[in-house]
Order: sequence, then structure tokens, then C-alpha cells
Amino acid sequence: MTRLEQVLEEASLIVEPEESERRHVTGMAAKLLSTCMEEFEGCEGFLSASIEGSVAKDTWVKGRAEVDVFIHFSPDVGMEKLESTILSVGGRVIEGLGGRHWLRYASHPYIEGEVEAVRVNIVGCFETGPGHWISAVDRTPYHTEFVRSRLTPELRRDIRLLKGFLIGSGLYGAEIRVEGISGYLSELLVIGHAGFTKLLRSVAGWRPPVYIELNGSIGRAEALKQFPNAPLILPDPVDPARNVAAAVSTTKLAEFILASKLFIRSPSVSFFKPPEVVMAEEGDRELLGVFFKVAELPPDILWGEIKHTMRGVARRLEKEGFQVYRAGAAQSGNEVLLLYELAGLTLPRYELRMGPPVWMENALDFIEKTLRRGERAAGPWVEGERLYALLRREDTEADRLLRRWIEAGQVAVSHGLKEELRRAEILTSRSGLFERIKENKDFREFLYSLLDGVSPPIRHLGRRS
Amino acid sequence: MTRLEQVLEEASLIVEPEESERRHVTGMAAKLLSTCMEEFEGCEGFLSASIEGSVAKDTWVKGRAEVDVFIHFSPDVGMEKLESTILSVGGRVIEGLGGRHWLRYASHPYIEGEVEAVRVNIVGCFETGPGHWISAVDRTPYHTEFVRSRLTPELRRDIRLLKGFLIGSGLYGAEIRVEGISGYLSELLVIGHAGFTKLLRSVAGWRPPVYIELNGSIGRAEALKQFPNAPLILPDPVDPARNVAAAVSTTKLAEFILASKLFIRSPSVSFFKPPEVVMAEEGDRELLGVFFKVAELPPDILWGEIKHTMRGVARRLEKEGFQVYRAGAAQSGNEVLLLYELAGLTLPRYELRMGPPVWMENALDFIEKTLRRGERAAGPWVEGERLYALLRREDTEADRLLRRWIEAGQVAVSHGLKEELRRAEILTSRSGLFERIKENKDFREFLYSLLDGVSPPIRHLGRRS
Repeated sequence: MTRLEQVLEEASLIVEPEESERRHVTGMAAKLLSTCMEEFEGCEGFLSASIEGSVAKDTWVKGRAEVDVFIHFSPDVGMEKLESTILSVGGRVIEGLGGRHWLRYASHPYIEGEVEAVRVNIVGCFETGPGHWISAVDRTPYHTEFVRSRLTPELRRDIRLLKGFLIGSGLYGAEIRVEGISGYLSELLVIGHAGFTKLLRSVAGWRPPVYIELNGSIGRAEALKQFPNAPLILPDPVDPARNVAAAVSTTKLAEFILASKLFIRSPSVSFFKPPEVVMAEEGDRELLGVFFKVAELPPDILWGEIKHTMRGVARRLEKEGFQVYRAGAAQSGNEVLLLYELAGLTLPRYELRMGPPVWMENALDFIEKTLRRGERAAGPWVEGERLYALLRREDTEADRLLRRWIEAGQVAVSHGLKEELRRAEILTSRSGLFERIKENKDFREFLYSLLDGVSPPIRHLGRRS
Repeated sequence: MTRLEQVLEEASLIVEPEESERRHVTGMAAKLLSTCMEEFEGCEGFLSASIEGSVAKDTWVKGRAEVDVFIHFSPDVGMEKLESTILSVGGRVIEGLGGRHWLRYASHPYIEGEVEAVRVNIVGCFETGPGHWISAVDRTPYHTEFVRSRLTPELRRDIRLLKGFLIGSGLYGAEIRVEGISGYLSELLVIGHAGFTKLLRSVAGWRPPVYIELNGSIGRAEALKQFPNAPLILPDPVDPARNVAAAVSTTKLAEFILASKLFIRSPSVSFFKPPEVVMAEEGDRELLGVFFKVAELPPDILWGEIKHTMRGVARRLEKEGFQVYRAGAAQSGNEVLLLYELAGLTLPRYELRMGPPVWMENALDFIEKTLRRGERAAGPWVEGERLYALLRREDTEADRLLRRWIEAGQVAVSHGLKEELRRAEILTSRSGLFERIKENKDFREFLYSLLDGVSPPIRHLGRRS
């Protein structure tokens, strides 16, 4: 047995559910399905119920089963009716099984719950044919069918290995918070490359943009035209106009490539274990933290706003002359922390202002305006063809400046977070940031991981498996 | 009389020599010429002597006359013989007239001296025809002849006005220290534009590269090809393969354009007076000064080395992450001061190091090397396609770093100044720079002008004439 085979066998123990888990999950799924059949029977437009997702395909990772029950409705029932039926009946189903439940939102609301320690979702979809999708989840039963038609026991193991491998490097999940690789995409990748090892050898050689053909291929040239900014393109076998990998960011794809290179060169079971949190020294790093409260919102909506705002603040800082080395965001309950590492928390006291070339119409204007400015410290002078001047900055501290820009509406933040951001607490590593998060485990671990700054795939190096 | 005419009339009083000066200078020139004729008579290869330069052309600026006597030799006398004859006989001539003299170097050595309070130069040239030049000064008699053939009393006045105007903004002189406009170029510019006012109106509309036709034009397209990096091109009427404006830097040309725009818009006699030294506040500006001794050298050679070294130090500082706002150099006796204004005298403690994209062959190399570095503070991490890391800097102070780079030979300095620079004194505005130059008028005024930073043409604005 090669080192690689050995590692994969060991990794299987991490990702393959044991027999007892299998029995418990499939039994629970069958019970949930039959209860749904009964309870939804007679509801307007109800057609049938089915198990979808990784349980239906037998591709879930040990300890991470989620039972997805899809309730199929006739297309002539409106979206509103579908939603209200799901919410009222779905809740009753879970209560009937002794579980607890709550409302969740993705493209439309659904019921999430927990029954006998297993996460369950009750989702409504319309029964339409390919090309006539009404809601975003109408494709799901077709996905299940496509994947099942291609599966073998070996591929099931390999899909679980890939999911475990992606979890081990923080790359699993298509949520906006993660921007990684979904379960369905994982399955298609393994199917398309006929196994985990072949896939990883291929990924190790990828250079974005990457195009992968499966069923119903549209061809690389056409794909690049149709999805111009996607670093990874895999047309959905059940709907080639859709890119299954649309959610994957360039960074996450690059980390996948890197993880594959590292694993192929030196296989280790460590890659299938989530990296440990590293205690990192605060040292004299220059950090800026923005704390604000957020309302309860569907995670993808909230995280869309958080990331948009995070980038808006970074751009504003950079525009004014700060060097932003890194930016990150974390959520803890109803609180969000945007964290920035800067080259320095203070701008130079004097700022070089570039004027026009002397031969431009407005050169004399620039001179007159500059000479009249109270903050002029030197110039205007001529260097090469251009005019320059040196201006004195009033404020140079990142936190004071950011506070002022936010108050003046000069930061491109998400509309939904505007008010929250106005009430934000802005702290730096010099003004109490570390003290502020000392008691908050989420934020502390987030800070540590930013301070340590080692990409998850790289953290596996040198770990004793 | 228009405002402009009034100003030019007033300016004439500044630049036009009075009758007594004229008589004294021309009398002295005649005496010097006849003495040279006598003394050089019989020397090997001696052909004749002549007055050249601004005295010969009657275009010198009041109080700034220099009498240039050219001693013409036959081309079959070698350069060495010419030099030794000039040095031995030239010195005797000046002594005979009761003056004092010393040796100077341009392209080749010549005698400089002072007789009856007038600067005199005795220069040896070969009498060759156009196109057969042996030494760099063989063209000079042809320059004199060309200019004289075009002069009128009005143009003489206008040439003096232009020279005074250029002196008033620090733009006069082709020396490397100045990189400005020579006397001969001033004369050609006024002749070519038929007067001072027409010239300035034209200059105010210039946009580099500027091509000017006179006698023996080669055409704009050909000129740009022949002198590809020159911001100003004026082919020499006596030798079109040579650019009379070769010494003019882009900055000085731009200042000339700017001075012309400002003067045309609002004429003032202030433009004909050298700008006063401005007392400037030191404030909290971030200055770095490099003091070193220099050997006695021909000014153009020394200043070539100073400027080369000044730029080499600036490039090194910038390469390492300092932002250099301005750089300048000054000489006081045998000491030179290079002065830099920086955004900050301290680099950020942590440095962002960009690695390769993950798909490159050497990505894993970068990771391994970075993980082994003692100065690694964070990373490597992935952002977009690339790897990055954060390294901790040992030294962050500009003066300490520069000292180290110089000692390690990591600064591109002029070879001739290498040893001097190793013994340089490096001071900052925080470490005694201001104290160091308190007693040195040259350096103090240089520092003030850098702190004030207003380009000389702009300093004329708002001055009471």
C-alpha cells in the first residue's frame, strides 16, 4: 500500500459514517418523509415529497448529516401559497416528531429543525421540467437524480474524502461567508475526474480560469464568454446555462489548488482535520477594528452586506494613503467585527499633492489655489513636467479619520448596515482593541487567525497527523 | 505704453550695462586680445586670437561680463601641445596685466582669471571647418559669427532681457548643477522668435518635447528621432547634428514654460530679480541629510557625480519602501549636502511580501522558505491567486538603514564619491540635522528653499516689484 493509499484509508475513518450513524440517519429520514407525505396530503397543489441532498445520495460526511425533505408543489400554486404551507405544516411535522424548529431563509423561506440530534430541513419546490424553473431549489431533485445515476461505492467514498478535505482547509460551502465549494459541486468534481486522487492531481495543475466539462458541455470558449469573471466554471449538467461553481471566489479556488499541490506532494491525514486555532502574539501589529451590531438576517444577505462594507472601508482607507495589508470579518451573535491590518495606523503628517503638468490650461489655477490653502506646507514646485505641493494633514489617526468619513457618508458601505456603522465602535491595537475582545471567544479566535495569518491548507504542513 | 512695455523698460535697467561698464569691459577685452596676440606669437601652431562669447556679441548682462579670449591653433598641433601652451602662456598674459588666474576644466583645461575686476577666460581651440571639429570649443567662433550676423540693437536688448529673466528664476546656465539654458541658447531663442515678448508668448504655449527650427533645420520628425529623450531640441545652426539645448532638463524647461505663462499673464519686473531666500519653518518635516567631503574637481564632473549619487540614494530609499517627496543637493566649499524630504523617517515595522500565484511552479518554494524565515510574522496566506506573507523588519530608521546600505555597497553611487560617502555623516531632522547646518549659510539657505519648496518662477508672484 502506498503512503497515499494509507492516508486515504485513515482519512476514510474520519469521513465515512459508521453503521450506527447510517441507520439512525436513514431511519430518521424515512420517518420524516412518511410523516411529510401524510401531513402535506390534501394541501393545495401538493404533489409529493422526497429526500434530497447528501442523505439521498449517501454522500454526507460523518457527523454532518442533514436530512433535506423536499415538498413538491404544482407550478400553478403561487410562491406565497407554497411558502405559507411549508411554514405552517413543516413546523407541525417536526413538532410531531418531537423535534424543535425555526425559520430560515435562502432564496425563499424554509423550515430548519433538529429531530433526534439530526439537522433536518423542510423545503418547498415546484415540480417543473428543466428550463422551466420557478424557484431556485427546483433543480435540486434533478441534481440528486443526476448524481445518483453516476455513483458507485468508490465514488461515494471519494466524495466524502473530498468534502472532508475541503472542510479541513475551510473551503467547503457555497455560502457568501465562505465563498467555497458546495456539496453538489464536490460531487460533480469527483464524478467528472473519476475519483478523489485523480481530481486532486488535476487540481494541483489548475490555473484559473478553470473550465470543467461534464454532461451537456458548452465548450471552453463559450463558457468563458458566458461566465466572464468566474475563476471556476462547471456548467450544471441539468442546466448548462448555470455555473455550479458561481459562488467560488478566486482566493478559495487558489487555496484549493494550493491544498491539492501540498497534499499530492506529501499526503497526510492532517488535511482532513480542521486546522486548530493558533495562539498568536499580538506583538506590535497595527490593527484597526470596527465593531457594530446587526439585525437578524438570512446569513447570505447579512454576509453579503458585511463583505461589501468590509471592502468599502478598506478602499476608503487605501484611497487616503493607508496601506491595508489584510482585511477580515467575523460574526459573534448579533455583533460583527471588521478587522484590518495596516502598514501603519497613522498617515504621514505631510501629504504630497500632484498637480497638472505645467503646460495644461489649469496649471496656474492649481498654483493659485494651492498658495491660498491654509494647509500648504511647501510648494508648488516643478518636478519633471508637473506641479507638486506638500499639504499638512489635520488628522492622521486611522480611527479618528474613519469615524469622520463614516459620519460624513464618505465610505461605500452596504445600505443595510449604514445606521449600524454610524454607531460603530472603532478601536485600534493601540486604543483597546485587544482588551475589547478578550472575553469573546469568536472574535479572539478570529483575531488570532488573522495575526497568525497562515492559510488553512498551509497550516497542515508539519502537523503530526 | 502698455504694462508689459513699462515692465520691460524697467527691466532693461537691470540687465543693460551702463556706458561706463561697457567702456571698461570692451577696453579690457581689446587689451587682453592684443597682449595674447603678442605673447602667443611664435608658439607652435598658433594662428590667431579672437574675442568670443557675450562680450564679442555685446549680449552680456549688466555686472556679469566675462571676457573670453580664444587662441586659435592649427589642427596639426596635438591636443597636448595646445593645452600646455595655453596653460603656460595664458597665465603669463594675465599676470602681465596685473590680474590673478587659476586653472579650470571643461572639456579640456583653460585659464580663468580676473583682470581689473572682470572675469577673463583664455581658451585654446583648433581652427577647423564645420564638420571637422576636434575639440568641443572649436564651434564657438562660428557661434559668435552666426549670432552677430543676425543681431540688431533691439534683439541685443531682448537677449539681455531673456538672460535676466532666466537668472531671475534660476534657469540660466547649462552647467550640470543647473541643467538650464545657456547663453548661446538664449541668443538663438530670441533670434528665432524675433524678440523677447514673442518668444515668451510662444514658450507659454509649449508642451514638451519642443522642437525649434532655425538655420539648417532637420525637421521635427527627424529631430525627435535623432534626440529621442530631449525635452527641448534646437539644432545648432553651425552643426545641425548637435542639439544646442541638450543640457536642458525637463524640470527646467517646465519651469521656463511656467515662468513665461506667469509673466505673460501678469508682467512684473520681479521676474528679473533673483528670488530672495525665504526663512522657512522647520515644523515637523521629515528630513534626511547626507553630508560628505569632496575633492576639488571641475564643477560639471563633480555635479554629475553628486546628482548621480543623489538619485541613487533616493532610488534605494524608495525601493525599500520610503516615500521620497523631494531630493536636492548643495555644495559649500569642499562639502556636499544631499537632502531628502520623506513621507516618514521610519518604515512600517512589518512589511508585506508578495509571493507567486499558487499555480506557479515556485509557489511551494515560497511557502517553505517563508515558513523558515526568522522574520516571518504572519502567513503565507492566499489572496486572489497569490501568496503573501508579513515579515518583521529589524531596522526601520532611514538613517540607520542608509548607513548600512552604503557600507554594504547596496547604493548606486557615483564611483568617484564612493569612499567619501562611506565616511558620510547621516542626520535627520530628529537627530541633529538642523543643529548641524545652523552655522553654514549655504546649507541653511538650501534647507530653507527646500522647506519652502516654492518653485522660483512662482516665488515672483505677489512680490512687490
